[in-house]
Amino acid sequence: MTFALTPKTAAGRRLRSAAEELIPVFQERVQAADADNKMPGENYTDLFRCGIAAAFVPSELGGFGLESVHDWIVGITTLARGDASTAIAINMHLGVSRGMAGAYQGSLKKPEVARKLAKPLEDIVGGNMLICATATEPGTDNLHPLTEAKPVAGGWRIDGQKIFVTLSPLATHLGMNLRMRDDEGDHLVTTLLPMDTPGLIPQDDWDALGMRGSGSQSVIFDGARVPPGAIRKLGPWGRWSVGMVMNRALANLPLVGAFLGVAEAAYDIAVDQLGNRQRVGKPVAGFSGVQTLVGEMDIELAKCRAILTAAGEATDRFLAQTRQGPPTLEEAHELMKDYQTAKWVVNRGAIDIVSKAMDLMGGSGYTQRHPLARLYRDVRAGPFMQPFAPTEARQYVGQVVLGHPPVD
Amino acid sequence: MTFALTPKTAAGRRLRSAAEELIPVFQERVQAADADNKMPGENYTDLFRCGIAAAFVPSELGGFGLESVHDWIVGITTLARGDASTAIAINMHLGVSRGMAGAYQGSLKKPEVARKLAKPLEDIVGGNMLICATATEPGTDNLHPLTEAKPVAGGWRIDGQKIFVTLSPLATHLGMNLRMRDDEGDHLVTTLLPMDTPGLIPQDDWDALGMRGSGSQSVIFDGARVPPGAIRKLGPWGRWSVGMVMNRALANLPLVGAFLGVAEAAYDIAVDQLGNRQRVGKPVAGFSGVQTLVGEMDIELAKCRAILTAAGEATDRFLAQTRQGPPTLEEAHELMKDYQTAKWVVNRGAIDIVSKAMDLMGGSGYTQRHPLARLYRDVRAGPFMQPFAPTEARQYVGQVVLGHPPVD
Amino acid sequence: MTFALTPKTAAGRRLRSAAEELIPVFQERVQAADADNKMPGENYTDLFRCGIAAAFVPSELGGFGLESVHDWIVGITTLARGDASTAIAINMHLGVSRGMAGAYQGSLKKPEVARKLAKPLEDIVGGNMLICATATEPGTDNLHPLTEAKPVAGGWRIDGQKIFVTLSPLATHLGMNLRMRDDEGDHLVTTLLPMDTPGLIPQDDWDALGMRGSGSQSVIFDGARVPPGAIRKLGPWGRWSVGMVMNRALANLPLVGAFLGVAEAAYDIAVDQLGNRQRVGKPVAGFSGVQTLVGEMDIELAKCRAILTAAGEATDRFLAQTRQGPPTLEEAHELMKDYQTAKWVVNRGAIDIVSKAMDLMGGSGYTQRHPLARLYRDVRAGPFMQPFAPTEARQYVGQVVLGHPPVD
Amino acid sequence: MTFALTPKTAAGRRLRSAAEELIPVFQERVQAADADNKMPGENYTDLFRCGIAAAFVPSELGGFGLESVHDWIVGITTLARGDASTAIAINMHLGVSRGMAGAYQGSLKKPEVARKLAKPLEDIVGGNMLICATATEPGTDNLHPLTEAKPVAGGWRIDGQKIFVTLSPLATHLGMNLRMRDDEGDHLVTTLLPMDTPGLIPQDDWDALGMRGSGSQSVIFDGARVPPGAIRKLGPWGRWSVGMVMNRALANLPLVGAFLGVAEAAYDIAVDQLGNRQRVGKPVAGFSGVQTLVGEMDIELAKCRAILTAAGEATDRFLAQTRQGPPTLEEAHELMKDYQTAKWVVNRGAIDIVSKAMDLMGGSGYTQRHPLARLYRDVRAGPFMQPFAPTEARQYVGQVVLGHPPVD
Repeated sequence: MTFALTPKTAAGRRLRSAAEELIPVFQERVQAADADNKMPGENYTDLFRCGIAAAFVPSELGGFGLESVHDWIVGITTLARGDASTAIAINMHLGVSRGMAGAYQGSLKKPEVARKLAKPLEDIVGGNMLICATATEPGTDNLHPLTEAKPVAGGWRIDGQKIFVTLSPLATHLGMNLRMRDDEGDHLVTTLLPMDTPGLIPQDDWDALGMRGSGSQSVIFDGARVPPGAIRKLGPWGRWSVGMVMNRALANLPLVGAFLGVAEAAYDIAVDQLGNRQRVGKPVAGFSGVQTLVGEMDIELAKCRAILTAAGEATDRFLAQTRQGPPTLEEAHELMKDYQTAKWVVNRGAIDIVSKAMDLMGGSGYTQRHPLARLYRDVRAGPFMQPFAPTEARQYVGQVVLGHPPVD
Repeated sequence: MTFALTPKTAAGRRLRSAAEELIPVFQERVQAADADNKMPGENYTDLFRCGIAAAFVPSELGGFGLESVHDWIVGITTLARGDASTAIAINMHLGVSRGMAGAYQGSLKKPEVARKLAKPLEDIVGGNMLICATATEPGTDNLHPLTEAKPVAGGWRIDGQKIFVTLSPLATHLGMNLRMRDDEGDHLVTTLLPMDTPGLIPQDDWDALGMRGSGSQSVIFDGARVPPGAIRKLGPWGRWSVGMVMNRALANLPLVGAFLGVAEAAYDIAVDQLGNRQRVGKPVAGFSGVQTLVGEMDIELAKCRAILTAAGEATDRFLAQTRQGPPTLEEAHELMKDYQTAKWVVNRGAIDIVSKAMDLMGGSGYTQRHPLARLYRDVRAGPFMQPFAPTEARQYVGQVVLGHPPVD
Repeated sequence: MTFALTPKTAAGRRLRSAAEELIPVFQERVQAADADNKMPGENYTDLFRCGIAAAFVPSELGGFGLESVHDWIVGITTLARGDASTAIAINMHLGVSRGMAGAYQGSLKKPEVARKLAKPLEDIVGGNMLICATATEPGTDNLHPLTEAKPVAGGWRIDGQKIFVTLSPLATHLGMNLRMRDDEGDHLVTTLLPMDTPGLIPQDDWDALGMRGSGSQSVIFDGARVPPGAIRKLGPWGRWSVGMVMNRALANLPLVGAFLGVAEAAYDIAVDQLGNRQRVGKPVAGFSGVQTLVGEMDIELAKCRAILTAAGEATDRFLAQTRQGPPTLEEAHELMKDYQTAKWVVNRGAIDIVSKAMDLMGGSGYTQRHPLARLYRDVRAGPFMQPFAPTEARQYVGQVVLGHPPVD
Repeated sequence: MTFALTPKTAAGRRLRSAAEELIPVFQERVQAADADNKMPGENYTDLFRCGIAAAFVPSELGGFGLESVHDWIVGITTLARGDASTAIAINMHLGVSRGMAGAYQGSLKKPEVARKLAKPLEDIVGGNMLICATATEPGTDNLHPLTEAKPVAGGWRIDGQKIFVTLSPLATHLGMNLRMRDDEGDHLVTTLLPMDTPGLIPQDDWDALGMRGSGSQSVIFDGARVPPGAIRKLGPWGRWSVGMVMNRALANLPLVGAFLGVAEAAYDIAVDQLGNRQRVGKPVAGFSGVQTLVGEMDIELAKCRAILTAAGEATDRFLAQTRQGPPTLEEAHELMKDYQTAKWVVNRGAIDIVSKAMDLMGGSGYTQRHPLARLYRDVRAGPFMQPFAPTEARQYVGQVVLGHPPVD
């Protein structure tokens, strides 16, 4: 287990330990969820029961009091060894609840506000709030959402369409970015609304190659109403701002852990089974070619783990610095670059590790219901995670290095 | 279409032209076959109707008179652009029927023998003979089959198990390698028997990640009988002989074409759709990152095509030389090395091309019933094709280069 | 020698055979040339003596009558196994003399013109004309040369600077592209002038990491005069035209062969020496890790050879078609794409093969005067060859695939 | 500078800071040392003056009191940005002096012994002791040295040959592994002897492709005498023991940092110069292809840094655990596996980064005296560092993973 991700904080150790216990439990349900293209609801009961869903809730409100992004990544990686669909789904909830916990803590000097902000966090602890999130729409990118909030009497109405709304079949609430135009300009804003809001219409259309248990259906918004205060500005629509860069980097970095977890699961299956396998009467673990390929797989895994550890630690350092004052746009892009680097390396490395595990297992891993076959399908979701697309990521990194980050 | 495989002979051009006409026909049926995990029987009606199933039958008996292995590869590559499962299935039939055509032509000076050997070839032309083949068993390799023919009164009885018996649900006959021991030693032999032979028990157990329409079920042999003359010696059991090296190389090289065909299909889907797609109002074909990734995909495809062309041509040259006299074991290993080289490059390249097409298509290619999702599953079957496993191929090539090919 | 390049024409076979004889001769001189940073003049005496320098001269004038670009590549690859610096240097001469031979053959219906055009070809046969060529200038690219021909009384005067003027220390003449502006516009033109032209000032400044025997000094033009008819228009300055695309592709494609030749030389050194080497008393050729790495090196070499063969054949087919009529700009870009593809694959593959040979040889290959150390330095020149730079090539290929080749 | 190695301890910060100051100083001397194939003696004066040479000497004796292997790596990486030859040379000295510091600290309860062991450490602080080390011999590996110590009256006599004795032209002492046979068996032992020992005959034969300033000449031992107590047993000759595994891993891991430093230097050159460069009148930093390649180079650098950080931290954790008790052989192999993993990734990554820097710089980086050309030659020394050879490393990693580490 060299170079394996290791939590740095006490809350992180609680999270990892709870997640580890769920690995075998999730593994028992994951094949059926995959076959039936259905979210395994009991997983979420477990995630609430053991406190993972409330990981970011401050301990005085009953949560783990998690603060480290690095340790959040460790948690997602661990869960994904059991079920990657569940890992990416609960990550949505954790990302939004992390923001809510931050807002609560920022309000502690104003007890009244704090009491109000504590309410949803207590709901999470109580198992009554589960939040999905999305930033994806067809034909556009994260920076240019077309789903729009327009002012109406008593608040806003939202119209548009979101896709890949992971976790939405079970969620009670949905967080998302959207467009809003007012006298001051054209804005990127964020909102949170109950899933039972009239005009929020889930499409029950998720039927994918992999991540089949993640419930990533699309959702149509047809005049969905939110109250006046429910919208928060992130920055200008269509232009990278500090708020938007940080929003996208922090929400999505832990998702990378899910694909590392998939790779670790594939690695474990291959190494375990090779230990017991014979060919023409000889243990295959003694074959030089098997050893070489296992070595290549192990090296690839070490790379992925090391870079994700480094990205998690860099993010925690970055956030510690921003407590002294907000980052510049340039600094925010450095954070995004670290995330993109880790994403590029881990997504590609994970695909490679699963492929090597397939090579090692031979035909038996190719049967429809073999866990490795599912991992082969799940792992391919990694590169789609936004931003930036595989067609953009390398150039983005170079632009930041050369001092020319993209503007829009 | 640069570097695309091009037939070298008139028979090859007929084959390719017939195969090209079937691409759209097969594409219409392939998604249902994949979803239902069922062989598309009509494809085989078409393959007989248009003459492809009889490609190796000499023209005087009604076939195309195909002789070039290169052009055989071109045919399989072309069919796989429509349906890779069908391409690998009919390849089994073609491999065995090529051997039968060779035997017939070698017998022309003995009209009586020739007449007898012409019979099954005419059956193929008439659509009455469809031959599957297998060399794979669990827990062993091509050189050490455990399925065995033992002498009994009136011939041989066969006991054992074969897996990946592609095409067997529709086949009328089955060709395979097996073990046979007699006073002269321990032999690798080959036989051909009707699928309705008592004791030949298909298991109807094919349910794989990909190549779902290939019917690659397992078959149990429980005292299946074949007549005295039905067994032909290839060489010693458990040792590489000229016969065995050539048998394995020639049967399997064209399978590599199937995975090139899968890559070509994925490439075509990506390039076609990118031409029509917009993002944030701009044509994506103008994005530098998209162009770069398309370039990388095109270069990878060029590599695969060039090496498969080279391997096909080298094989035809090799066979032309062996008409002057049988090859040495060393020469046979050179042929096998060429095949392994092409297999290594194309299988890995095809996986990479499909992966790049996925990157280019984004989330839309990740839906369960998208052709690209099927190609992603189909293409992963490439590395399993025997011999040699991905754990063995590189070392095998090096052994031949260094003058130490494996003995057993 | 699987997949090794093989000449397709009788003239090509003569060329290859003559080149093969020179391999050991060149190898004897190459280390001294490298150490002394000096062109090995005797190599050129040999190249004239054995007819290689006159390969493109029609046989009725005393040359080989070479026409196939594929076979030209074979010749350069073969020479580079002996000395890559000499191979790229003589390639310049061959490229220009090929154009001269084409002009002569196009003139055969006008005997007077033909007689005039035969003269320099006869000079080549007689060993009296050796032509270097260049298209490179600092700070710009092939399409935008800043060296310019301006009309003066009695012809043109040329001012500017060229770099990487390979072969120029020994050449009698120099061919190059340059800029010319007249009433009709801003042109890319080509010219040929004697090396002893006043105002053509060689800089004797070649001192590079590798290709040290290639004499690739820079040349300054300070009012160098050429007669009125010495300038031929290729197309507009700064825009890709059919003429310019073909000029660049045909002049440079065979250079790719030089880097394949370097890789072949490195491969041969490694395989030969491994056959004789022992470690801790055991033959290293029996070590599984050595076999695996040799296998990887062999596969990489096979890839390079196959794609260069394919590119050479495609070019010959292209030229055969253009005899029926000039190509469109789109078709010309297809040719350039084939060249870029081969260049990308072979240059990178050759670097990889030399690196693997280093890995196989261990410390002994790392000594200053070991042939492998020179090959390690020589092979790195590959990616600089224009057009397109390594920063451009992948995108260029994608642009052509997507139907958007670069305009300027 | 994302993911850049960062010291973890105060001593490490002193080391890094001192090393950083030497970067420009070393850079001024490095080209001449490379050109003249000579060690830059003044570098060592500087290394003593600023305390780096005494980094491992406890602070009470006047050193930095460095303990962290991670921070040792940081120091070597930093020095190598200035001059990689000097970095690998001083690393030999540091490795041996680290062992001496450990022995001194283990003796503190016995003041007399401690006083004796303090002496050489004080010599280091005083600039009077500089130690080179070697474990390499021709035709054998680290585990099977043929240089042997045989008992003679008054101690031992040593006969044999060592190669790659880096730093030996300037060293006062030489540490090495060798063979010793006695009644108890056949042993691997270690010794330290003055360079002016009669019978220790430096060969002044270092003339390599790169690392030319490292003084890595060979040394012949012809009856060199050492006193009775100068030999310390590591384990059995020819078999991996805990002592030998740890000896090899700890001595060589920091060398990996030297190749990371080379990569960082190449990266810096490329990024700096691209910022100032124009092509056809446009800043190249704005070209999409340049940005993409810079991004690829940056991602590769991030990988190398992350894995080396991880390996350094894992080593420090390992050593902290062994303070509680000696490791098992299995645990020692885990340490070696981490080192091999980092070595594999960083050596190959560094070669790739330098190659990408070359691609980015174009022809200007290819001139003989350009720093990048030197880095291209220096970086290739990485894979030779023992153990394990590039032909062995992947299989070794797999063997450890599968629970079958090599025995001999």
